[in-house]
Amino acid sequence: MSDGIRIGQLGAGFIGKVHSLAYRNAARAQRPLGATVELRTLADHNAQRVAEVADRYGWAQTSTDWREIVADPDIDLFDNSAPNDLHVEPCIAAARAGKHVLCEKPLAPSAQEAHRVWREVAAAGVLHQCAFMYRFIPAIAYARQLIEAGELGEILHFRARFLLSFAVDPEVPFSWRFDRQAAGPGALGDLGSHHIDLARFLVAEVASVAAASTIEVPQRPGGAVTNDDAFVAIARLGNGASASFEGSRIAGNHGLTSRIEVDGTRGSLAFDFERLNELALSERGKGGFRSILVTQSAHPFSDFWFPVGIQGQHPISWADCFAHQAHCMLSAIAAGRALPSEAPTMFDGYRVAEAVDAMARAAAEREWVEVSYRDLDSPEGA
Amino acid sequence: MSDGIRIGQLGAGFIGKVHSLAYRNAARAQRPLGATVELRTLADHNAQRVAEVADRYGWAQTSTDWREIVADPDIDLFDNSAPNDLHVEPCIAAARAGKHVLCEKPLAPSAQEAHRVWREVAAAGVLHQCAFMYRFIPAIAYARQLIEAGELGEILHFRARFLLSFAVDPEVPFSWRFDRQAAGPGALGDLGSHHIDLARFLVAEVASVAAASTIEVPQRPGGAVTNDDAFVAIARLGNGASASFEGSRIAGNHGLTSRIEVDGTRGSLAFDFERLNELALSERGKGGFRSILVTQSAHPFSDFWFPVGIQGQHPISWADCFAHQAHCMLSAIAAGRALPSEAPTMFDGYRVAEAVDAMARAAAEREWVEVSYRDLDSPEGA
Amino acid sequence: MSDGIRIGQLGAGFIGKVHSLAYRNAARAQRPLGATVELRTLADHNAQRVAEVADRYGWAQTSTDWREIVADPDIDLFDNSAPNDLHVEPCIAAARAGKHVLCEKPLAPSAQEAHRVWREVAAAGVLHQCAFMYRFIPAIAYARQLIEAGELGEILHFRARFLLSFAVDPEVPFSWRFDRQAAGPGALGDLGSHHIDLARFLVAEVASVAAASTIEVPQRPGGAVTNDDAFVAIARLGNGASASFEGSRIAGNHGLTSRIEVDGTRGSLAFDFERLNELALSERGKGGFRSILVTQSAHPFSDFWFPVGIQGQHPISWADCFAHQAHCMLSAIAAGRALPSEAPTMFDGYRVAEAVDAMARAAAEREWVEVSYRDLDSPEGA
Amino acid sequence: MSDGIRIGQLGAGFIGKVHSLAYRNAARAQRPLGATVELRTLADHNAQRVAEVADRYGWAQTSTDWREIVADPDIDLFDNSAPNDLHVEPCIAAARAGKHVLCEKPLAPSAQEAHRVWREVAAAGVLHQCAFMYRFIPAIAYARQLIEAGELGEILHFRARFLLSFAVDPEVPFSWRFDRQAAGPGALGDLGSHHIDLARFLVAEVASVAAASTIEVPQRPGGAVTNDDAFVAIARLGNGASASFEGSRIAGNHGLTSRIEVDGTRGSLAFDFERLNELALSERGKGGFRSILVTQSAHPFSDFWFPVGIQGQHPISWADCFAHQAHCMLSAIAAGRALPSEAPTMFDGYRVAEAVDAMARAAAEREWVEVSYRDLDSPEGA
Repeated sequence: MSDGIRIGQLGAGFIGKVHSLAYRNAARAQRPLGATVELRTLADHNAQRVAEVADRYGWAQTSTDWREIVADPDIDLFDNSAPNDLHVEPCIAAARAGKHVLCEKPLAPSAQEAHRVWREVAAAGVLHQCAFMYRFIPAIAYARQLIEAGELGEILHFRARFLLSFAVDPEVPFSWRFDRQAAGPGALGDLGSHHIDLARFLVAEVASVAAASTIEVPQRPGGAVTNDDAFVAIARLGNGASASFEGSRIAGNHGLTSRIEVDGTRGSLAFDFERLNELALSERGKGGFRSILVTQSAHPFSDFWFPVGIQGQHPISWADCFAHQAHCMLSAIAAGRALPSEAPTMFDGYRVAEAVDAMARAAAEREWVEVSYRDLDSPEGA
Repeated sequence: MSDGIRIGQLGAGFIGKVHSLAYRNAARAQRPLGATVELRTLADHNAQRVAEVADRYGWAQTSTDWREIVADPDIDLFDNSAPNDLHVEPCIAAARAGKHVLCEKPLAPSAQEAHRVWREVAAAGVLHQCAFMYRFIPAIAYARQLIEAGELGEILHFRARFLLSFAVDPEVPFSWRFDRQAAGPGALGDLGSHHIDLARFLVAEVASVAAASTIEVPQRPGGAVTNDDAFVAIARLGNGASASFEGSRIAGNHGLTSRIEVDGTRGSLAFDFERLNELALSERGKGGFRSILVTQSAHPFSDFWFPVGIQGQHPISWADCFAHQAHCMLSAIAAGRALPSEAPTMFDGYRVAEAVDAMARAAAEREWVEVSYRDLDSPEGA
Repeated sequence: MSDGIRIGQLGAGFIGKVHSLAYRNAARAQRPLGATVELRTLADHNAQRVAEVADRYGWAQTSTDWREIVADPDIDLFDNSAPNDLHVEPCIAAARAGKHVLCEKPLAPSAQEAHRVWREVAAAGVLHQCAFMYRFIPAIAYARQLIEAGELGEILHFRARFLLSFAVDPEVPFSWRFDRQAAGPGALGDLGSHHIDLARFLVAEVASVAAASTIEVPQRPGGAVTNDDAFVAIARLGNGASASFEGSRIAGNHGLTSRIEVDGTRGSLAFDFERLNELALSERGKGGFRSILVTQSAHPFSDFWFPVGIQGQHPISWADCFAHQAHCMLSAIAAGRALPSEAPTMFDGYRVAEAVDAMARAAAEREWVEVSYRDLDSPEGA
Repeated sequence: MSDGIRIGQLGAGFIGKVHSLAYRNAARAQRPLGATVELRTLADHNAQRVAEVADRYGWAQTSTDWREIVADPDIDLFDNSAPNDLHVEPCIAAARAGKHVLCEKPLAPSAQEAHRVWREVAAAGVLHQCAFMYRFIPAIAYARQLIEAGELGEILHFRARFLLSFAVDPEVPFSWRFDRQAAGPGALGDLGSHHIDLARFLVAEVASVAAASTIEVPQRPGGAVTNDDAFVAIARLGNGASASFEGSRIAGNHGLTSRIEVDGTRGSLAFDFERLNELALSERGKGGFRSILVTQSAHPFSDFWFPVGIQGQHPISWADCFAHQAHCMLSAIAAGRALPSEAPTMFDGYRVAEAVDAMARAAAEREWVEVSYRDLDSPEGA
């Protein structure tokens, strides 16, 4: 192919590295991509870091100013792997410059800003994706297939909890994650947003919420904590199902507990991030929960890697799911078509932000909040 | 011993059988009881049932009127294993007649009635227990020991869910459990009350709540359902910890999922009823969760049965925990002393009922409710 | 019923207590027994112990000489809960005196002696049972039902391991369990015999074996160890399946790991003693392993206790399975009929002893040993 | 770096793809490699396949004759990802041509041939590795660290089982894996060899063995099966520990069960391939088994990928472990030093082959076989 897809990425931190590897590996997947991929420009405010990371992952050039990416007419896709407060302006600028945009979650520190990003990017007519990566985990994709096929019947309950313990020690120093201005909500935005998107992906939109949140460690070395260390919320979803959400960065001694559970009239399922390759399924009349290794030929993404043969089941990684995500975006660009319906766009990024805001408000005001979504008459919002 | 403890029990249904076996086995425990036990009178409105069950478990005589137990001067302990709407009057009458009282949970269909039971029974000067049996599960008793010893640090989060699926089929017929008058709240009272007591037992009183509840199947063969099929609630506990509760009798395909989790500043623990003999514990700096079989010599109740020797760990049963509960009551009676502080009394039954009522009100009115407890100045309530 | 079943039991140690409770509870089971039960005489060489245990469990009288039980014309059932070297003579004497006999496993320290017990007891025309209690665990009984129904197809592999760690510390003092004369083989007889019986119960007789064994701690405080601390064995079963067995009392840090696994042409199953109420089942074309809680109405023994209602699954105990075992024996005596085909008799006790002997010989001589069973033409052995 | 490491690889099948991706990703690891990497030549007898795979993974050129790789003076590393019967000659030729050699396991269809490969390759003075990939799984590497540090005390027991079900259906067609000439032993060579290497890696060499094996399906569409469908073996290891091994490609309904367990005087550990990121550890005096997620900063390979930060634990994949393996080889080449002691060389490939041969002989002749290793006086074999 004479001209492939040229990528410019903002952010060379932890998640930026993960995205870099994902683009490299997506381009080498067994599943056809339909284009070559070029890692053209990596930008980061930290000059030393951007040089190192670009060298490691093979970016052709570096910059300390994301505007150079936007200004580069040869770049097709803008990847925003920067911290939350650097999502809005760069994404809008890139889209206006005609670049497709993939942005990390949460889309913006507030629903108002997220709404603006979505509307502006959509108006620019480019493809856009918000990196709710969980949708590209095989177990989650399979859960969605099962639910869409009616295997669980009508969904009555959804519950989610996301428990980390990295901030339980008061001596953990201040960083942008603890700052309301830079990050938006804390555990609610960082952790809860993943699960809110899954509630929407698997069941229905969040309709109303009650919540509580806590700043357990108000002062850390280097700064004052201004967003929530932990939150709990209950909700009614659009289909009438009950839901509960919890997120914490101060939760005892958890490695990375991220678990969702769904109960319907015909069965139940559960997913646990630490056992990334498993989906637990319990169907009425067929006994209790069984652990399905979602790496067999019948499962989503089984064609992605080598593929897996008859000899069985080979665990994939968390980072591999980012390659699935990148592949979804790149192959749509290559084909000149819209993203598939299961891909998360900035519409989803906005909708999640609205639910996050509602939870934050419900917690602050100690009242039930109806979530109101803007642009309900928008074709894309239908 | 010339004169042992003579028991009269109301209720020959499922839980009445469990109590009957528990009294028999408590009297034969390795752990000293200090008295003999006589199963004197079993009462139930169903004459055929009471005859059969009395014969099976060796009750000396039967009755179809609980007042005969109250009137019998030779009965020392009144056990109330009747449905919820038969708790209040018989318990009070028995206590006034000088009998010690053990009553199944929930103590009463409303907090007001529960308060009355507690006050009247306490005023009678008899020993009293409300059958929050979970406190007598070795894993729960051990969890309390660990928390009291500070092994988990300050407790920040508590979560509980109790999921059954027996009522998800709309053809399941109506019974007293589905009736607000007879049973009080549905899943909230029947299932939630166990977990509310555990939050209190392991962490602190429930201070404020928000909740939502559902009647998913309003009409069943034989009657209209008037209490909740499912509820979700969030709460602030008295020590500032966040809490969440969920209970459902319409939850997908669960056998009996009853799980609690506690996160503190030094570690986390989890208990799952289906794995009754295990406690999962995760301590900071000592790796992830480990499954502790709570049947070894270091654990509560390890002296209770044979006892277990060096050869290892022998699973006990759910019904065995009722024997622990019975033994706690009987040995206090035998010794003429108060129940140990970890035993659940009618004070606990009342306090739980207050939190249940608050959750029901919070759900009905869609607002946060502060739980107000009566008789805070009572010595027993201190 | 005018005259019930009168029991005399030899042995008031750990397992004697378990049997005592089992007889009491079997007599109060929901499942009809057809007779009353009288705990008549408990015998043990230790006069103080026998008095205490008899008092606790309600034995009518005690003795320090088992011959008094044999001589008592009013005793119907002789229970032998004594150490292994007290199995042969008392069982034979009791049977000759016309008493039904239930004897703990292993039946005798050698196959030759076990054969003699079986033949003598069978010749006396009484009912007899060898306490391979695992057959009365609901999960095992259910596994047998599944296999008999062909749900696993043709069985190709069986594997078992029984791992304890109580003897890994060299300071654990000498007792009869470590003595070849008193106990017979060590881990092989004590632990392996359970699993050998399960191979026979679920698949087929042991046909040929190779094995290795170890005395890791030859000298303990109080005596020299003369039987195996650990063994491993491989075998061919009568149907051609491969099998492996392992047992150890010096295995690292295991509570009580006793696990069996079966693979057939249509599926696999696994049982783990520490999760007594669960059976893991994996059927071809139906995904991976699922954990079945074997306490529902469809399962063996679900009618035994209260019974369990629609509200779900209540874990039973290890000791409860002894009540199942006792009930099996008592109800056959009450009905005057033979034991059901799934009950383990002294024929099974003998057959297991023959396989144990073969493994011990295979280990000692480092060669494959064909297991030869005596009395193949016996009607009872057919 | 002006001149990097140039790789030539034989084999474009399933495992060849995995190796291709591994070389690409190893070159982009966070952990320094010290050289650039060039995927120069991919060879495979299937011209169409080699073209497709080379295109996907970015090999610069292709060939249908491995001799072209050997003859290319610009190739530094020869990777042999071909079927088992193409290991011996190409590896020896490549080494004689001065190329470093990495070869898939099993090293050769017989111990005699494996010995020849080892001696010839070692004599050529090049670096060499046999792809016992399990050593590069973080949980296994961590297990070795724990054992070397004495955390488990003296090792007394090792057990391993590798259960697949892909061949239980007799209609699965014949392929080279079922052919004794092409593949060597079946389940024993393909599956058992991994676990034999782990016994050696974690405990000690295999000293003596007894075994049994089965051809359950002798005839398949397309050919006669001439190697074992399943085997079981017991062994004594060099340090006196007992060991058992089992492998099957006809085992009921298993996805990919590959499990090892180790018991020492101070504790136990277990590893299960399907839960690749977990190691179960049980230490005396510290309760039961706990599941350690081996992806934290304290663990091997935690520096390899991004690296993982304070926010917790991100599952890696099976394929990632091949990148670890490739990185080990490439970084040694780059540094001009020997492989680290924990890396598996062709010496290990030979030693495993000797144990495999001994097990095959033990099964065929139904006798215990002492494993005799050649060149015990070799410096490399010390």
